[in-house]
Amino acid sequence: MQREIYLDNSATTRQYDEVTAFVAEVAANSYGNPSSLHRKGIEAEKLVTAARETIAATLGAESREIIFTSGGTESNNLAIKGYLDANPRKGKHIITTKIEHPSVLELYKHLEKNGYDVDYLEVDISGNILLEELKSIIRNDTALISVILVNNETGTIQKLDEIAAIRDSINPQTVILLDAVQAYGKMKINPVRSGIEMVSVSSHKIHGPKGMGALYVSKKTRLKPLLFGGGQESLLRSGTENVPGIAGFGLAAKLTFNKLEDAHQKVEALKKIFCELLGESNLKYRINSPVDALPYILNIGFEDLRAEVLLHHLEQKGIYVSTGSACSSHKNTRSHVLSAMGRSPQMIDGSIRFSFSGFNTEEEIETTVEALKEIIPLIEINRKQKLRRN
Amino acid sequence: MQREIYLDNSATTRQYDEVTAFVAEVAANSYGNPSSLHRKGIEAEKLVTAARETIAATLGAESREIIFTSGGTESNNLAIKGYLDANPRKGKHIITTKIEHPSVLELYKHLEKNGYDVDYLEVDISGNILLEELKSIIRNDTALISVILVNNETGTIQKLDEIAAIRDSINPQTVILLDAVQAYGKMKINPVRSGIEMVSVSSHKIHGPKGMGALYVSKKTRLKPLLFGGGQESLLRSGTENVPGIAGFGLAAKLTFNKLEDAHQKVEALKKIFCELLGESNLKYRINSPVDALPYILNIGFEDLRAEVLLHHLEQKGIYVSTGSACSSHKNTRSHVLSAMGRSPQMIDGSIRFSFSGFNTEEEIETTVEALKEIIPLIEINRKQKLRRN
Repeated sequence: MQREIYLDNSATTRQYDEVTAFVAEVAANSYGNPSSLHRKGIEAEKLVTAARETIAATLGAESREIIFTSGGTESNNLAIKGYLDANPRKGKHIITTKIEHPSVLELYKHLEKNGYDVDYLEVDISGNILLEELKSIIRNDTALISVILVNNETGTIQKLDEIAAIRDSINPQTVILLDAVQAYGKMKINPVRSGIEMVSVSSHKIHGPKGMGALYVSKKTRLKPLLFGGGQESLLRSGTENVPGIAGFGLAAKLTFNKLEDAHQKVEALKKIFCELLGESNLKYRINSPVDALPYILNIGFEDLRAEVLLHHLEQKGIYVSTGSACSSHKNTRSHVLSAMGRSPQMIDGSIRFSFSGFNTEEEIETTVEALKEIIPLIEINRKQKLRRN
Repeated sequence: MQREIYLDNSATTRQYDEVTAFVAEVAANSYGNPSSLHRKGIEAEKLVTAARETIAATLGAESREIIFTSGGTESNNLAIKGYLDANPRKGKHIITTKIEHPSVLELYKHLEKNGYDVDYLEVDISGNILLEELKSIIRNDTALISVILVNNETGTIQKLDEIAAIRDSINPQTVILLDAVQAYGKMKINPVRSGIEMVSVSSHKIHGPKGMGALYVSKKTRLKPLLFGGGQESLLRSGTENVPGIAGFGLAAKLTFNKLEDAHQKVEALKKIFCELLGESNLKYRINSPVDALPYILNIGFEDLRAEVLLHHLEQKGIYVSTGSACSSHKNTRSHVLSAMGRSPQMIDGSIRFSFSGFNTEEEIETTVEALKEIIPLIEINRKQKLRRN
């Protein structure tokens, strides 16, 4: 069997083996419904409580500030819709950025048709919002500012503390939602210290089970539920709890945060090697990710190349990468993120996202750059031959 | 270790061992994001497609008519909210029953505050709706009739074909949502043949993974999504697919439907033995479930007894049952189902739900009835002693 080099960790990650085993164990033994009054129910409820405490601790939050959801998309939707529905008097103005994830942007498109006024902040060539622009558009009726902490295509990190400070100085009533799906487990996030009311996180981006996420909601912030029913999750998220998923998410968070710094350093070193090896090659490219991006994501635009062609050549060698993000890859649209960062359509069409995890090795990076050095000239030759024939 | 006798299968079930193994295998090996363009993504997508075909086949439906969700609650919420949002011209009148699950009733309470007019059908002492009443209240602006096919507390089965025929004769524009969470895998459901537009099902009630459900939506019926984002599930349910959960649900459905008749016969025999043994005892009780109920649920009201006390005594012997349903057991309210069926508050307070699965054995039933015969007189003695002391 061909060895796999998985460099698409921002799309989803391989689950920790420990988590796989734990999820199976919980499903087999602690299968009760947490709402049941008997021992099997209480046993299940204890697992949920323990996982909630773990997730809360990773965010410096209280347990009651954590709501389990079915994933990052639901967390973002619950935060936005739940907050706006519960606080109609806070206004109908929303500020977000041009480089958000679809789970935020698509909902805003929907809300714009329903009486909300949404401003989309521009970003600079690094993908950073312009703080002056933010300052100028916060209004009395700005209910919500929503920002993707680490962009899923480029790894750009927004200046959270500055954003919160600007909000505080202009309209302290405005709440901030942080889409931290790509940031969680890769950098420290402390919503209380940063003055952030809501934070969305996801399990499958940190080697946890798929179909699991959480939303941090400050105890001072009121939401309405998206899903009505049995009243689980303090009435905010009805539905029988996915106990194995919740328990597995808790374990994944524990394992991830226990070695957050180590993994970060390791990945930073891998990114450095990647860039150095690429720099020593004759390839023509431009790194779209800013130098101070989260090292887990390295977006590179190759000249005169269609990224999809490169992706499939890499796949032949067992190397898995993305064009843009997985979430929008099945739609044939150009990356809205790279567009907002001022990249030319041609450069965007040649852009590949390499996204790393603590599972990756130096050898894998070397193999990948070797593969690029071999494949890209071949693609170039094929292209020229085709041109000559036409 | 004490042996467990799990008779709370309507709250949730123990996962099939085969499913536990398969979920673990998929999580470990096929961990790609179905939206990714490379082989790992395609491999994941194939698993989703296969599971969708399985679920569709169990309902006599087409694959494109199946939407995967995070569970029965989300399926019900998506069906109701999604249909009403997408079809505002069909009217603001909804017909449902007094014995629905909270995931339906709580949403209707919310909709009533938002301009919808909801009629709640009465039921007879068996829990069956009165077809004449239904006939008399369908209007031109009745958008939706929503009915729980098998009631989760008593096992009462509604007369689906009659309900659909009445709808057809009065307002064929009205769509029907079937909450089949307790029915799925235990009786045959064919929405196309029955003329039903939407059917909610859940995975963890049929020994599949928790946090998974599906909604059948007739190809002629239009919905709007509850969750906005990457556009998965034909734009109707955004969020990275829970591939291990979906694959596990597919396998659970396959295993369940392969032996649907056998399991049904087995459970019917268990219920018969339970009733016979109880009949031979000196206990004073009344069976709340009608004789023609789905045999998987047996609701029994014991005289002069608090069900919770009995539940905890049974728990001491490793026998797990419910008072009412798990979904409302943490709220201290009397069963709305038994109330609607005309049971006295005293009888409701003494009612226990025994719910079976194909995993249960004759010996477990015998042990349970023996336990009841031992425990109930003890509770009675304790109660009398306490009365005398006061």
